[in-house]
Amino acid sequence: MPIRLSSLFLRTLREDPSEADVAGHKLLLRAGYIRRAGAGLYTWLPLGLAVKAKIEQVVREEMANAGAQEVFFPALLPREPFEATGRWTEYGDNLFRLQDRKKSDYLLAPTHEEMFTLLVKDLYSSYKDLPTCLYQIQNKYRDEARPRAGLLRGREFVMKDAYSFDIDDEGLKKSYQAQRDAYERIFTRLGVEYAIVKADAGAMGGSASEEFLSPSPIGEDTFVRSPGGYAANVEAVATVAPPAISIEGQPAAKQVETPGATNIKRVVEFANQNVQRVDGGVWSAAHTLKNNVMALVSPEGKRSLVVVGLPGDREVDAKRAEAAFAPNEVEQANEDDFAQHPELIKGFIGPVKGGQAVLGLNGSSGIRYLLDPRVVDGSAWISGANEKDQHIFDLVKGRDFEADGVVDIAEVRAGDPAPDGSGPLELARGIEIGHVFQLGRKYAEALGLQVLDENGKLVTVTMGSYGIGVTRLVAVLAEANHDDKGLIWPAAAAPADIYVVAAGKDEAIYAAAEKLAAELEAKGKSVILDDRQKVSPGVKFGDAELIGVPTIVIVGKGLENGEVDLWDRRSGERRPVKVDLAVAELI
Amino acid sequence: MPIRLSSLFLRTLREDPSEADVAGHKLLLRAGYIRRAGAGLYTWLPLGLAVKAKIEQVVREEMANAGAQEVFFPALLPREPFEATGRWTEYGDNLFRLQDRKKSDYLLAPTHEEMFTLLVKDLYSSYKDLPTCLYQIQNKYRDEARPRAGLLRGREFVMKDAYSFDIDDEGLKKSYQAQRDAYERIFTRLGVEYAIVKADAGAMGGSASEEFLSPSPIGEDTFVRSPGGYAANVEAVATVAPPAISIEGQPAAKQVETPGATNIKRVVEFANQNVQRVDGGVWSAAHTLKNNVMALVSPEGKRSLVVVGLPGDREVDAKRAEAAFAPNEVEQANEDDFAQHPELIKGFIGPVKGGQAVLGLNGSSGIRYLLDPRVVDGSAWISGANEKDQHIFDLVKGRDFEADGVVDIAEVRAGDPAPDGSGPLELARGIEIGHVFQLGRKYAEALGLQVLDENGKLVTVTMGSYGIGVTRLVAVLAEANHDDKGLIWPAAAAPADIYVVAAGKDEAIYAAAEKLAAELEAKGKSVILDDRQKVSPGVKFGDAELIGVPTIVIVGKGLENGEVDLWDRRSGERRPVKVDLAVAELI
Repeated sequence: MPIRLSSLFLRTLREDPSEADVAGHKLLLRAGYIRRAGAGLYTWLPLGLAVKAKIEQVVREEMANAGAQEVFFPALLPREPFEATGRWTEYGDNLFRLQDRKKSDYLLAPTHEEMFTLLVKDLYSSYKDLPTCLYQIQNKYRDEARPRAGLLRGREFVMKDAYSFDIDDEGLKKSYQAQRDAYERIFTRLGVEYAIVKADAGAMGGSASEEFLSPSPIGEDTFVRSPGGYAANVEAVATVAPPAISIEGQPAAKQVETPGATNIKRVVEFANQNVQRVDGGVWSAAHTLKNNVMALVSPEGKRSLVVVGLPGDREVDAKRAEAAFAPNEVEQANEDDFAQHPELIKGFIGPVKGGQAVLGLNGSSGIRYLLDPRVVDGSAWISGANEKDQHIFDLVKGRDFEADGVVDIAEVRAGDPAPDGSGPLELARGIEIGHVFQLGRKYAEALGLQVLDENGKLVTVTMGSYGIGVTRLVAVLAEANHDDKGLIWPAAAAPADIYVVAAGKDEAIYAAAEKLAAELEAKGKSVILDDRQKVSPGVKFGDAELIGVPTIVIVGKGLENGEVDLWDRRSGERRPVKVDLAVAELI
Repeated sequence: MPIRLSSLFLRTLREDPSEADVAGHKLLLRAGYIRRAGAGLYTWLPLGLAVKAKIEQVVREEMANAGAQEVFFPALLPREPFEATGRWTEYGDNLFRLQDRKKSDYLLAPTHEEMFTLLVKDLYSSYKDLPTCLYQIQNKYRDEARPRAGLLRGREFVMKDAYSFDIDDEGLKKSYQAQRDAYERIFTRLGVEYAIVKADAGAMGGSASEEFLSPSPIGEDTFVRSPGGYAANVEAVATVAPPAISIEGQPAAKQVETPGATNIKRVVEFANQNVQRVDGGVWSAAHTLKNNVMALVSPEGKRSLVVVGLPGDREVDAKRAEAAFAPNEVEQANEDDFAQHPELIKGFIGPVKGGQAVLGLNGSSGIRYLLDPRVVDGSAWISGANEKDQHIFDLVKGRDFEADGVVDIAEVRAGDPAPDGSGPLELARGIEIGHVFQLGRKYAEALGLQVLDENGKLVTVTMGSYGIGVTRLVAVLAEANHDDKGLIWPAAAAPADIYVVAAGKDEAIYAAAEKLAAELEAKGKSVILDDRQKVSPGVKFGDAELIGVPTIVIVGKGLENGEVDLWDRRSGERRPVKVDLAVAELI
């Protein structure tokens, strides 16, 4: 049966809803695909549900092609398995927690690593059972601090999450590749543009990890690409460190009074006015060492300070910092923090004071001190001297100061070299639509998933995890496929194959439109039929454009000549065809 | 592609899992359809998911046939709409409540009356938009005090909940009938035995209400049937009250010392030994008035007492009492309650003392007093006299005592008359699998759902709600369709159409089984293929019986003669057919 607009639960809106912040989301609301039910919570109307079902179908087919089997877990889960892996705490405020009537702790699962691990442990015991790959398509929950852009970042959302189980690393690589290939097929079938970028795998305790990003100006993720084919999200970009420099022959460090030079700009101005460079050149921010005092807050709420020294022409990238210090949250140090460390003189912080270490676990402050990879041995810097209005020039790493380690959290800039030598990086924004991840043995170890190998020895299983944001894909498709008149779905995700408009008052028009719709459905095409008798053709055409089925048929005044119009929503092209030939053209 | 047992994520169990309490649930666990994930929480394995999907498909088709449109709401919802209708509180401990990171209140929805009402209010505004009927198939949450029998009473479960919206009562009746008809088609297609019984509609504020019960000895619901076709759940059975009796000429009430007669049995013994009946007959419990002191606890936690007087040969039925006093919870009065009412002398409680009212809002106790419908005007009773070891004989209702009202909470017994005069009732147990309900205007009024009628006047919409327990149906089907060897699915709910067993070691057997499976799939049949090479035929047959696909094909040693065996799981019948003819027989 066609979907009839005369009875479809739908009201299209002429005006943009005030709640919507991006174009695709506005159109999903205006065209009656979804409605807001609460912050980050959406209700699916019939048209939206049809699009979601189509995407799920493509995902299911390609999961089956990749040999993955579908299961379905509760969304409401007891605390214990998440306690065993530490995620109960690590997830922090992002986890919805609750108690049942017996005051036992439960959560609404954000992902299901623990449960899949326990399920395989429950059923399987031998290498002969492996490899296996399981998945579900399910409502997930995340208590986002800032739900945004409708389905793009919601608090209840549908994910396909798959998990592979292998006896060894080689098996994991194959399983990973099979899912990665399936993802490429899924996104290609759905007409979603994507880039595969290296992702930071550290925080989750695994090894290789890649993200599928759909390039979009509204994306929250920044990624880089090089002409030579390197691609990574900014969290995963490794800075190319320059080679170490010989310390021998470098001028000695000297302390200089720098009145009022409390920031990099003033320091550089002062230096250029007052201090001659050995090479006669000009001082720039890149010659200064900026020491950022940051506070790390652990999932348990423990606060500790860290100072990161990086070249003064670079800023800390918040996302790279979050990734590097996960699961801690990263904040700027506050007044309380400084009050507890009077040795830190704002604007004049540096690694040493009077030749003695201040920063570093072995320094007088005891604060951990980490350096940007560019601060190599032998490099010389202008740094604060830990005294008001005092800086040190020619402070040489490896001679005058040391640190506790390296951390790579400075912003990545267009033009920076790709880590693999494949040329300068360009930056782009994208939306994460998929993530493939060699988890390794972290979860299997925490939950005791072992099987007997060929020699009868217990070995820990190695796992991969693979996610696709199903409801997010609806938003991505809407964002990437619209014009000022409405949505333009790719065929694979459209709420129907063909949209038939009966435009006019003649009963013959409605009869012909009904007949055409029935014939198309008989041929296996799904049809939306605008059979509203008291609505003007103009309104009907406007709704057709707004709803965005890519192929539209207008049954209107051309019918007198035995013709209907085929209207390509994307190109805008309209052309008449004979009624009797229309079905053949459309199937 | 057939489902291959060589790779299917499945382990069948020989032993009954200790957690399982009923036969169907044991078999669902043993045959690898589901696994327990927590109290009242179940994980669906591939076979279980297939059965669930089949049931959902039947439900979807019949909802479409009934003109209902599918939508999908969040399960996580803000408190406000449920506050507006009072359900936030009324649901008591059965509701899972939680807070988000901003400390706003949320719940996991048990049903979605509020959200559907608000959605229709959001989109619709005119009588022209009505009638409409919407539904969803969705995970629901209820914090059951006693999850039991696996999927039968879980805490996360799948329901189809539909809601109809009409301009007037006549429309509602039609919408109700359309859903009721759809339910009959759904249960018939799925091969579920069912009885449609009148249900108690009072608590939900609506009018007509019927339940679909599947008769089963493990059912939690008791229902009654009469030879004349009356059927109701016990909560809904209205007691047939005898006609009033003339008071004139009845003997006067007289107080009698009844030492130690603290219960009905002793009172009757005492009466038969010491008090002559006017008609010379024998005293029985039916002549005594039993006054039950009960405590009602409101959803807000407020406790109040009520006394219910009923013939001494009847007990209070807990479920009927719960229904009558909903949303209050009903408890027996405790020592504290009695301590606060010294006028209540245990074992000797009655409506009057020395001719003055004790029970009743106007009595000296101030406790509400309600009577069973059998306690009609003019009926005479032996009742406690509110003094130790004292009863009153010939206490006549309407002459010697009054009450605040009538309440119908006495147990229903086999042999009681049907309220519609259709004969004596018989009692049976059943599992509620569906509920259709004329909600009326309760939710529309609470949430302001009004539309303009033909005269441009705002009228409140009238609603119906219609539920089917989808995951419960899996349990009901398993319970009703099994033998000591395993499950026997009705075809419409089986995880596959045909189960092919390759039984033997010969490669030819496996090749023939593969070919047969492929041919069946090409004809549109779904197939499970037992292609495990190192498993004995005995184990394979056992698994086939346990898993319970109704049609099994054995490709085994008969292949030498060009034959396979068709095995009807339900009848047990096995017969050979020629390989070339097998497909034709099976499609």
